[in-house]
Amino acid sequence: MEAWARGVRGLLLDISGVLYDSGGSGGGVPIAGSAEAVRKIKASGLKLRFCTNETQATREKFVKKLQGLGFDISVAEVTAPAPAACRLLKERGLRPHLLVHDDLVPEFAEIDKTNPNCVVVGDAAENFSYANVNEAFRVLIGLEKPVLISLGRGRYYKETDGLKLDVGAYMKALEYACDVEAEVVGKPAKAFFESALAEMGVPPQEAIMIGDDIVSDVGGAQQCGMRAVQVRTGKYRPCDENHPQVKPDAYVNNLAEAVDVILSQL
Amino acid sequence: MEAWARGVRGLLLDISGVLYDSGGSGGGVPIAGSAEAVRKIKASGLKLRFCTNETQATREKFVKKLQGLGFDISVAEVTAPAPAACRLLKERGLRPHLLVHDDLVPEFAEIDKTNPNCVVVGDAAENFSYANVNEAFRVLIGLEKPVLISLGRGRYYKETDGLKLDVGAYMKALEYACDVEAEVVGKPAKAFFESALAEMGVPPQEAIMIGDDIVSDVGGAQQCGMRAVQVRTGKYRPCDENHPQVKPDAYVNNLAEAVDVILSQL
Repeated sequence: MEAWARGVRGLLLDISGVLYDSGGSGGGVPIAGSAEAVRKIKASGLKLRFCTNETQATREKFVKKLQGLGFDISVAEVTAPAPAACRLLKERGLRPHLLVHDDLVPEFAEIDKTNPNCVVVGDAAENFSYANVNEAFRVLIGLEKPVLISLGRGRYYKETDGLKLDVGAYMKALEYACDVEAEVVGKPAKAFFESALAEMGVPPQEAIMIGDDIVSDVGGAQQCGMRAVQVRTGKYRPCDENHPQVKPDAYVNNLAEAVDVILSQL
Repeated sequence: MEAWARGVRGLLLDISGVLYDSGGSGGGVPIAGSAEAVRKIKASGLKLRFCTNETQATREKFVKKLQGLGFDISVAEVTAPAPAACRLLKERGLRPHLLVHDDLVPEFAEIDKTNPNCVVVGDAAENFSYANVNEAFRVLIGLEKPVLISLGRGRYYKETDGLKLDVGAYMKALEYACDVEAEVVGKPAKAFFESALAEMGVPPQEAIMIGDDIVSDVGGAQQCGMRAVQVRTGKYRPCDENHPQVKPDAYVNNLAEAVDVILSQL
């Protein structure tokens, strides 16, 4: 019956839409049963890693918020795009113009940002003003060889007050305006899942990704050789179940249900 | 030598980047020789029509600005996307949510905008705030069958203080976020050129389009069976001359030069 849940040694959990819905004055609302589910995973001896495309805050700030919402989580357990982008920038001698959320800027503190030779775009939210997007466009189109690095390619996410446009939409705007293709750091990039698996020390065939995004979470993880489960929380929409390219290994109502099934198979 | 300029009975002129560069406190700066070139065309007996994707103002306001800059132009001579969009909306019983410049809104005065069943996006400029773009996204993704109508698909245009992102970039953002394809009203849509030709009363093979946009002006007009000339003013960039798909019938330094060549062949 629940063959998808067998032979598991490690779990990768998406955060937004799986642990909690972001937004509102408190910064978000936990999804019922998710905090308990994280505790159960930790008690089970399964390996666990949080694999997020969150780029609205430093990992420190983000983790603090999640702890405040009742989650047992630490910075060292989180794989996120900004540190991955910093590694890539250093390796290639790239100096970014940042089109990101103010709260993400400290993640790039060590990076030389003078005389930019690339643009990094994250989920800048309200910082996606016309002036800011246009400034990034001008930097990009002024480069002899435009390099655009995108922290994820999500279409939208769900906050407590509704759906919000994600970084992918603005990545597409800049791609089109400058006739370039962005390099994506974060889910669904294969290298990103592979680094999360390496940090967890579990091979893909023994790991399950649990997420609410049919493309970035489910499709990306499956491309990597992992199993992937879609939760019916967060940005999940019923039409996801007819997605032309991606079919999850299972659907579950929420993280709590996924974890109960997986633990019952140990 | 100048075979491209022979057998002409009518001219379609792009406005921004051909007659003038927009922006700045006066609303723009005429391109040297363009006002005189328009007068020469009118004196020659050639048919003339202005074919613009301008959607930052009503035609009335836009024409008034151009008159102030010294151009002999009237509202009746201008083919623009907003009136074409209004015809389409009425024909199909569509009620738009508008993501456009404040100054364009009066063009839609006669259109029912209650309980929207489509989104119309124009060159909203500073109105492309995150909140406004997100609101349009929410309307669109909430529709059972999302309909997105875009007033042009330009990548960028040139103002006196530099390049500015055009409607096409935001069209792409919404297309991606909602997984829809926009219907484009305005250049390079064939129907738009055809209506400009009909208004002028000249068949495509006897008409020349003069514009600064290699895709929207030149490519679009050629698709329609017209000849098309690219000026080296406005948003023109030298790399346009290596465009993989579109090759103009001629390049000219500016409108004045194009008009002198055409008139010399009459």
